[in-house]
Amino acid sequence: MRHLLLSAAALLLTAAAPSPSDIISSAPASAWRDVPPGNLLLLEFAGGRSVVIELADAFAPGHVANIRRLVGAGWFQRHAAIVRVQENYVVQWGDPTAKAPLPAAVQARPDGGYERPGRPQGFVPLPFADAYGTTVGHALGWPVATDGNGHWLPHCPGMVGAGRDMPPDTGSGAELYVVIGHGPRHLDRNIALVGRVLEGMEQVSALPRGTGQLGFYEKESERVAIVAARLGTDLPETGRPRFEVMRSDAPAFAAWVDARANRRDAFFVRPAGSADICNLMPPVRRVPQPK
Amino acid sequence: MRHLLLSAAALLLTAAAPSPSDIISSAPASAWRDVPPGNLLLLEFAGGRSVVIELADAFAPGHVANIRRLVGAGWFQRHAAIVRVQENYVVQWGDPTAKAPLPAAVQARPDGGYERPGRPQGFVPLPFADAYGTTVGHALGWPVATDGNGHWLPHCPGMVGAGRDMPPDTGSGAELYVVIGHGPRHLDRNIALVGRVLEGMEQVSALPRGTGQLGFYEKESERVAIVAARLGTDLPETGRPRFEVMRSDAPAFAAWVDARANRRDAFFVRPAGSADICNLMPPVRRVPQPK
Repeated sequence: MRHLLLSAAALLLTAAAPSPSDIISSAPASAWRDVPPGNLLLLEFAGGRSVVIELADAFAPGHVANIRRLVGAGWFQRHAAIVRVQENYVVQWGDPTAKAPLPAAVQARPDGGYERPGRPQGFVPLPFADAYGTTVGHALGWPVATDGNGHWLPHCPGMVGAGRDMPPDTGSGAELYVVIGHGPRHLDRNIALVGRVLEGMEQVSALPRGTGQLGFYEKESERVAIVAARLGTDLPETGRPRFEVMRSDAPAFAAWVDARANRRDAFFVRPAGSADICNLMPPVRRVPQPK
Repeated sequence: MRHLLLSAAALLLTAAAPSPSDIISSAPASAWRDVPPGNLLLLEFAGGRSVVIELADAFAPGHVANIRRLVGAGWFQRHAAIVRVQENYVVQWGDPTAKAPLPAAVQARPDGGYERPGRPQGFVPLPFADAYGTTVGHALGWPVATDGNGHWLPHCPGMVGAGRDMPPDTGSGAELYVVIGHGPRHLDRNIALVGRVLEGMEQVSALPRGTGQLGFYEKESERVAIVAARLGTDLPETGRPRFEVMRSDAPAFAAWVDARANRRDAFFVRPAGSADICNLMPPVRRVPQPK
C-alpha cells in the first residue's frame, strides 16, 4: 500500500501495460464529452466545502427540471442544509423544518426517475456478473443497470438521489442525498437518482456522522448550511468551471475498464479479472480555465 | 429517506415481515458468538477517536500473531500514526519514518493471509451472484469468498488489511489500513486481510482526506497519533469490552440475509431480491457491562 520508487523491471512492465491512470491521462480529446453547463449543479456549504454535481437529465428529467427551478428560485440556500450524515450510507441535505413551501413550478411528485424503458442509447454492457442479477454497463458516461425491460442508474458512491417519504411519493428534488460507502444497490428503482458528484466527494464524505437515528444531526448547530447553489449557466462563461466525462463508447474507456479489472502493475499478485460497476465510475476531469 | 411515523397498515406489514433490525434485536443468545478477548484490538487515536477490531486469526494467523507481538511491545503507540486517508479507499496507520525496528519476534513476511486452501469450516454460501465471479458467503461470522480451490476474506468496508510494499512482501502487520467506501475487491488475494472493525467506523471514516498522492497526509501535523493499542486481554476482566458477532449458521442470520435482500417494509417499491456480500457484513453487538 506504500508508494514506492519502482524498480527498472517494474517500470518496463508498467510501460508495456498502461495503468488505469495512464490510460486516462493519455486518452485523446475524442474520448471525452463535455458536461453541459446547464447540467452542472454547484453547491457551496458553510465552512468552505463544496461539490460539483452533474444532473442526470437523460435518466430523471422531471426531477432535474425541479432542481433547476429550485436553484433558480434561490430555494436551497434559503431553506436547506446538510441534516444527515449516516456512516456507510448517505450525506443528505434538505429543509430541516420540512415546512418551506416549494416554488410554484416545482412538481411534488415528478414522473419517472426510478426506471426508464428498454436499454439506454449507446449502452455498452460489461462482461462481468452483477451481485444484483442485472446486466450492468455504461451509457453516455453514466453507470447503468438493466434487466432488458428497463434501465436505471445504480446506487454507487457519488450518485445523488432525491429523498422521499413513502410510496407513491418520488420526492421533489428539494431533498437530496449523495451515497457514501459501499453502494446501497437495494435502493435502485426505489428512489430516483438525479445526478453524480463530479468533484468534492472527499469534502462531504469526511463530515462528522450524525448521532441521531439514521445519522440525522441531533443539534441545529451541527447542520451545515448551503451558502450557494448555482447552475453552471448562472456563472459568466469565462469564470464557469468546465468538466468532461469519459465517453462510454470510446476505445480508451474500454481499455480503462480492462485495466481496472486486470491490474498488471508490479504491485498485484493476482489480477481480479473482473470489477464491480461501482468501482467503474466513468473518469472525470476538470478542464483548465483558459488564460 | 425520511424517518416517518408509519401508518397502521404499514405497521401491520412490518409486523408480518420483520425488518433486518427487528431480526437482529430478537435473535436468541444462541445466534451469537463471543469475540475472544485475545482477538479484540482496541486502538485509541489522538483527539478521542477509537476503533475496536476483531483479529482474524482463522484467516491470517501469522499476521495476527505479529500484531499481538507489536501490541505487547507497545510498538504502535511509540511508532505509528494515521498517515493516509484516501477517499473511497482506505484509512491507514503505520510508522511514518519507515525506520522503526520491529520487535525481534515479529516476522517481516508471515506466510499466508492472501488465501487459504479449500472452503472454510462452516461455510454458508449466498444464493446471489458476485461481481468477481466467485462464490461468496459467510463462515464463523466473517464474510468469505471462494473459488472452490481456496478461500479468502473480501475487501469490504470495515475490513482491516496489512499494508505492504512489492511482492513477495506480505506486510508484517505493523502497517494496517481499514477499507472505507465501496469495497476495493481487486485487492482480494493481493493483500492479507487481518481483521474487521467492530466499532468506530464512523470515527475513522470521517477523518479529513489527505491531499498528497494516494491520500497521504502531506504535513506531520495532520497525522493522527495512536495513544493506546491494547488487546482485550490487556484489560482487567471486569472492565473489558465484550462483543458478539452473529453466527453464520444461525437461523436468525439466514433470516437477516433474506430480509436484507428482500426489503418488505412499506418504504420499498421493488425489493432487490439479492444483496452484495459487502452489504451483508455480519451483525455485531456490544455486550453491556455487568453492573
